[in-house]
Amino acid sequence: MRKEIVKLRKKMERDGVDVCIVPTSDPHGSEYIHPHFEARRFFSGFTGDAGTLMVTQDEALLWTDGRFFLQASEELKDTGIELMRSRQPGVPTLEDHIAKIIPEGGVIAFDGELVTARYGALLKKKIARKRGVIRCDYDPAEGIWPDRPAVSPAAVWPLSVEYAGKSAADKLADVREEMKKTGADFHVIASLDDIAWLFNLRGGDIPRNPVFFAWCLIEKDSVSLYMHGNMLTSEARLSLEENEVSLRPYEEIWQTLAALGVGTDGENAEPEAAERGGSPVKKRDKPAVLVDVAAVNYRILETLPDSVRVIRQTNPTTLMKHKKNDVEIGHLVECHRKDGAAMVRFLCWLDGRMAALAKVKTEDGGESAGVNGGGKAIVGSINIEYAEDRTEGLTAGECDEILTEISASDKLESFRTQQEGFIDLSFDTIAGYAEHGAIIHYSATSDSDAVLRPEGFFLVDSGGQYLEGTTDITRTIALGQLTDEMKKHYTLVLKCNLAMERAIFPEGTRGENLDVIARQPLWNLGLDFRHGTGHGVGYLLNVHEGPNGFRSMIIPNQLTCPFEPGMVTTDEPGFYKDGHYGIRIENELLCVPHGESEYGKFYAFKNITLCPYDIRAILPELLTDEEISQINRYHARVYEELAGRIGEEERAWLKNATHSIERR
Amino acid sequence: MRKEIVKLRKKMERDGVDVCIVPTSDPHGSEYIHPHFEARRFFSGFTGDAGTLMVTQDEALLWTDGRFFLQASEELKDTGIELMRSRQPGVPTLEDHIAKIIPEGGVIAFDGELVTARYGALLKKKIARKRGVIRCDYDPAEGIWPDRPAVSPAAVWPLSVEYAGKSAADKLADVREEMKKTGADFHVIASLDDIAWLFNLRGGDIPRNPVFFAWCLIEKDSVSLYMHGNMLTSEARLSLEENEVSLRPYEEIWQTLAALGVGTDGENAEPEAAERGGSPVKKRDKPAVLVDVAAVNYRILETLPDSVRVIRQTNPTTLMKHKKNDVEIGHLVECHRKDGAAMVRFLCWLDGRMAALAKVKTEDGGESAGVNGGGKAIVGSINIEYAEDRTEGLTAGECDEILTEISASDKLESFRTQQEGFIDLSFDTIAGYAEHGAIIHYSATSDSDAVLRPEGFFLVDSGGQYLEGTTDITRTIALGQLTDEMKKHYTLVLKCNLAMERAIFPEGTRGENLDVIARQPLWNLGLDFRHGTGHGVGYLLNVHEGPNGFRSMIIPNQLTCPFEPGMVTTDEPGFYKDGHYGIRIENELLCVPHGESEYGKFYAFKNITLCPYDIRAILPELLTDEEISQINRYHARVYEELAGRIGEEERAWLKNATHSIERR
Repeated sequence: MRKEIVKLRKKMERDGVDVCIVPTSDPHGSEYIHPHFEARRFFSGFTGDAGTLMVTQDEALLWTDGRFFLQASEELKDTGIELMRSRQPGVPTLEDHIAKIIPEGGVIAFDGELVTARYGALLKKKIARKRGVIRCDYDPAEGIWPDRPAVSPAAVWPLSVEYAGKSAADKLADVREEMKKTGADFHVIASLDDIAWLFNLRGGDIPRNPVFFAWCLIEKDSVSLYMHGNMLTSEARLSLEENEVSLRPYEEIWQTLAALGVGTDGENAEPEAAERGGSPVKKRDKPAVLVDVAAVNYRILETLPDSVRVIRQTNPTTLMKHKKNDVEIGHLVECHRKDGAAMVRFLCWLDGRMAALAKVKTEDGGESAGVNGGGKAIVGSINIEYAEDRTEGLTAGECDEILTEISASDKLESFRTQQEGFIDLSFDTIAGYAEHGAIIHYSATSDSDAVLRPEGFFLVDSGGQYLEGTTDITRTIALGQLTDEMKKHYTLVLKCNLAMERAIFPEGTRGENLDVIARQPLWNLGLDFRHGTGHGVGYLLNVHEGPNGFRSMIIPNQLTCPFEPGMVTTDEPGFYKDGHYGIRIENELLCVPHGESEYGKFYAFKNITLCPYDIRAILPELLTDEEISQINRYHARVYEELAGRIGEEERAWLKNATHSIERR
Repeated sequence: MRKEIVKLRKKMERDGVDVCIVPTSDPHGSEYIHPHFEARRFFSGFTGDAGTLMVTQDEALLWTDGRFFLQASEELKDTGIELMRSRQPGVPTLEDHIAKIIPEGGVIAFDGELVTARYGALLKKKIARKRGVIRCDYDPAEGIWPDRPAVSPAAVWPLSVEYAGKSAADKLADVREEMKKTGADFHVIASLDDIAWLFNLRGGDIPRNPVFFAWCLIEKDSVSLYMHGNMLTSEARLSLEENEVSLRPYEEIWQTLAALGVGTDGENAEPEAAERGGSPVKKRDKPAVLVDVAAVNYRILETLPDSVRVIRQTNPTTLMKHKKNDVEIGHLVECHRKDGAAMVRFLCWLDGRMAALAKVKTEDGGESAGVNGGGKAIVGSINIEYAEDRTEGLTAGECDEILTEISASDKLESFRTQQEGFIDLSFDTIAGYAEHGAIIHYSATSDSDAVLRPEGFFLVDSGGQYLEGTTDITRTIALGQLTDEMKKHYTLVLKCNLAMERAIFPEGTRGENLDVIARQPLWNLGLDFRHGTGHGVGYLLNVHEGPNGFRSMIIPNQLTCPFEPGMVTTDEPGFYKDGHYGIRIENELLCVPHGESEYGKFYAFKNITLCPYDIRAILPELLTDEEISQINRYHARVYEELAGRIGEEERAWLKNATHSIERR
């Protein structure tokens, strides 16, 4: 058993804890987690982005979803931790499992700031039958994790209206309008992207997410931001002053919440009167606080006093920011030209490098000459040694010519960095060569970093944060020879992608309705991919932004929304042959109006991503005429939009990469 | 204003009622309503199958859904009642509208047996802010509806295991197993199809639905049926005695429920202790009753005493009966052969009649000779007069040769009646000629009954109840000349239907995921149909049986389910050109296994309906090769399965109707 788990078990025994839960989250429900909150990773050794560890004296189980099955099963080998594959037949949910295994009156402990209010309430309900007790002030890592990283706040700066398209004052007025509609006197916001969006501020407290740790409390005639230290730039401070935002210390939120509504009209109202049968009058007189139980943590809900009543509703900001305004859309289109240019430069460069390797390989028969012109039989060695261990003995440091997943990712980052307005990557690049491509959310480490060879597929999922928006693109690149099966799978995935892009649908249609469109070509052959087809994308914010998305699962209580013009959603079907290769093709689709008939408004998608597919991997005989013409039109547009933004050699490469295809 | 509304308003004024709701339902939540409960129809004059009337002194509004917009707007003309188009943009829900218009402390009155427990609770919540008061013992029709039909119970007879495939004892054991899982001591069932299925009994209390009015209370070691009078056949009585079912009077359920759990362990438990914060211990000790708040009425929920706690959960029977067992499936396949034979005989007969009319029309130029060989210029008159008023002056009674919507429906019924094992129609036939076809749930009346002419479309949606199951089929028939637009729309609808039939999908997929498949060909042209693509079908039970179905709307709290082998779902896309014609093509699809891969189990559909499409209405140039081959294979199967069950002339007709088509 992993030593961290052994230590945790000792601590639990000392503290009288029967079940300890270590979730993957931070106090704001962020998807990407600051290292300070990565206790689940620390305890389990599993490095994926989602998962929950549950530890008892007898069991150590880790739940994660389909995106991470492969990665988790590799990383959990020999740890003594068992993998629980979420939503697979026969696998119980965490809460159902806990309800089953806890002893009568058992103690479940976790950090209440790291689970949603909704989940905490659900868990409480599930264990009620066993009279389970929740301790939600428990930090499992305390005293066990010696070199735990500290939260170190970064500067917070304003995004001007020129980029945001709408002032913070106007956004606040809209939110107050929504509060009025529901009768809310207070509104607590904990989600960092909502806060950043609302105030037109950006920070850097979480890697790759330009957000900052804060809480926000909106009242009818005042608004407060609870933040760490003094990290505001003078412009940011000025903009907050203009909007009469009071600044409070980050930790003060707990005092504020505990006293919310005390001293107001409803203070002496009896809290229980209206619960059942009785007159609702008194309860209704209490001041009301709007909280999104899916977006605030359990501690917040538990801290709210009886002097307020809770209105459970989705954050109004969440239902505003996902519809990009015209100013944002204008910038986004430009943003994708920049990002596309960086991608094309990378693809051209990579092709050149692979061509050089392939040439040497062909010329020397695999034994003698080296790619660097020196005497070492490097390339021959790669080709020979690859079958046994691709990383052993050979690293980028040994030879300039050798590319690895990480060095290729770094090169791609350097092309993005050269684009004006570039701020950061929007997430850690997923660059998976060969079988690593089949690990859906793979992240190369120095241990796993594979050498790229001039054959097979290289899957690169990457994106940037620019003043003009956030990008997310995946291309699967043929580094050389492909098998017919590889080409067939690539073409199928492309068919899935293209089908979604062609969708036309009436107002009211949701991602759950459309998802099947991007799966049918695979389903027809008994194939599938174990992730959603796409997610919303923020504007210079989180690369994953709800509630729009393409999902196949209809999950009760999961916030979803019908598509509306201005929403941006990725279209990223894939196919993963475990142990061999992975294919994913991802564009961003902007929802646009598509006319109106007696059946109402119709919408369509505009693909705003600009980067060629790999035509060397396409089997045109598997495509319909419609699909071929769709590809050719797209490639013509890519060339037209990007040709002026790249060098001459790159332009020639792009011309060739975007040439018309036809059925043989 | 309609005089019934005027009378209701007087009554409301006298009784101090501000808002009166008249829903379309019966105490069991049945979809098809016994005439006794058709107060909404009585008050509003709207004859459609769904809708809710709301009356105040100032307003009379009727909410109904997309299936009935056209019919309702016609029938509500000059009634003073305003049509509220449910789920259209800008149209509030009934409860939101009431919450808006009721005066502070206003009284809302309705019959609590006619709304679901869930809806009653929702309404209560919505009006709490205005301190609205609910009177749920109010019968609006009492004293106003003089000749209200009485409920007259029909015989209740047993369906043998030879047809049901599973004994009542085994089904009861399964239900008790589910009760045990949730910790329920009691389970109240109000839905009539669940009760009929559970006890393998059938009745005839609701036209077209072989069910009987009853309540059922299951306890751990006893089970009671509450029924009207002594309507059991001796075999039915015997089968209940064998299963130790006690028989109680129908109305006694209210006394039973009011006393439920009284005198048991939990009797003196304080009801509120566990509501908030307090220990859940006492509440958990109360006996528990499992009720499906979507399937019991509000009065049941309100009658349950504090001595029991309520477990809100879908009826276990609902999640059992929709998966047909192998015995049922075997019978269903045979059932569709019978139903298909009746349909083919009807289509052949209708074709002959139309051909005769068309011939005369061609021969005589529209003025002189008559179809009946007599001297009257009947047919000429039809052709001339039709443009002005198709029904005026000419009825079936005047001339044997003239067909109308009703007389054609009667003929179809007679073909079904001749099939062995036939019991009843499964719903009133929808037979809509020309523009009547565009009224989605049209039901011809003696006033509307249109004369059929040898041109245009005739939409016939019909089905039967047989010992071997329930059928539901729609064919749209070309009675003669069609325009190119008509053919295009027919072909589009057929493409939609065929696409759903071809679907292959993994375990876990729901109707909401798949629905889009049967809409894309229409959506691509900005067209749509305003109803779900399909619904589950009972086994010698209700023709509409959930929770499986193809729907586009994802409605919170609406019970849906993933498809599983054994489920039968209709596939019935349509297109409706208001004022001109309607097209719908409906088959029943049986979910079947379709192999297993590393991505899990895959399922597909088998079309069990047997009846040709109208190839005269197909434009093959709009079809893909795959679609053409799908049609030809189906038509070959239809001929093979049915040829032996019909007469010689009909066989010749079927041979021609099922001939192979090809692209021109």
